[in-house]
Amino acid sequence: MDNRLDSDTARTLRSLLRGQRVAALGTLRQGAPLVSMVLYLPAPDFSHFHLHVSRLAWHTQDMLADPRVSLSVAATDDGSRNPQVLERVSLRGEAVALPNGTAEHASLKAAWLERFPESAINFELADFAFFRLAPRDARFVAGFGRIHNLSAAALSEAVNGSI
Amino acid sequence: MDNRLDSDTARTLRSLLRGQRVAALGTLRQGAPLVSMVLYLPAPDFSHFHLHVSRLAWHTQDMLADPRVSLSVAATDDGSRNPQVLERVSLRGEAVALPNGTAEHASLKAAWLERFPESAINFELADFAFFRLAPRDARFVAGFGRIHNLSAAALSEAVNGSI
Repeated sequence: MDNRLDSDTARTLRSLLRGQRVAALGTLRQGAPLVSMVLYLPAPDFSHFHLHVSRLAWHTQDMLADPRVSLSVAATDDGSRNPQVLERVSLRGEAVALPNGTAEHASLKAAWLERFPESAINFELADFAFFRLAPRDARFVAGFGRIHNLSAAALSEAVNGSI
Repeated sequence: MDNRLDSDTARTLRSLLRGQRVAALGTLRQGAPLVSMVLYLPAPDFSHFHLHVSRLAWHTQDMLADPRVSLSVAATDDGSRNPQVLERVSLRGEAVALPNGTAEHASLKAAWLERFPESAINFELADFAFFRLAPRDARFVAGFGRIHNLSAAALSEAVNGSI
């Protein structure tokens, strides 16, 4: 584990995880990988990442059957840069469903709608629930050959700018 | 399986798979999912998708240990659209390493360099190889609630515009 990021690298990671809205979620489906696009919202301290997904979706069924997931967030490829050096981070950990109708759900819903106002309709549908992904580790590619392996604690520290 | 796409939907899928340069690759690492960003190049008939990757990378080690992979390609989120309706496709299948030094390798290399001219340096490095991903099926989300499950044959037909 490489548990120290310099402040510029930490800023890049922070800005990547807070700036993007969509991620690629990897789940296990009959023991094989399935990758699908999801919207995600990080907790302010990056200790958790939240998804709001439908139980009708394959990835949701997968997480209910096996909580092991990976979430990858990459800088937008706008065609102007060498795509090999786009910043990206891969988280690995477990995702669990959170119950609806709690104070925590209400608070997450408010944060979610601030980020994704067009998703309001999903909260009217009975099949949607929040999942909370707790990262076990993170692999951050900050540029060509600039690979950092981070523990969950180091991820939280780095994105808080305390290093 | 939903093996027919109307011509507009087929055009959208074609344009997504030919227009994007980066994808999210899901591999198995110690039995759990790992998702990482890769550059990819589709065969003209979409029967295969090629990756040019380093044996030093985790995803390459994973594919050598277990060929089961998923590759997800999503429309760029430029912030202007509801991210829930971004077009995306998830392929599932197996990926195998191709040998260097063959006529096939030379032909792939030429196509790769046309698409990714900044990747020329990778062909000087002994640890890089092409992997060929043969999709078994594809799940295409063409917009809100517009989900199409396609066999590999249907994927090829659809992107060739023959339907």
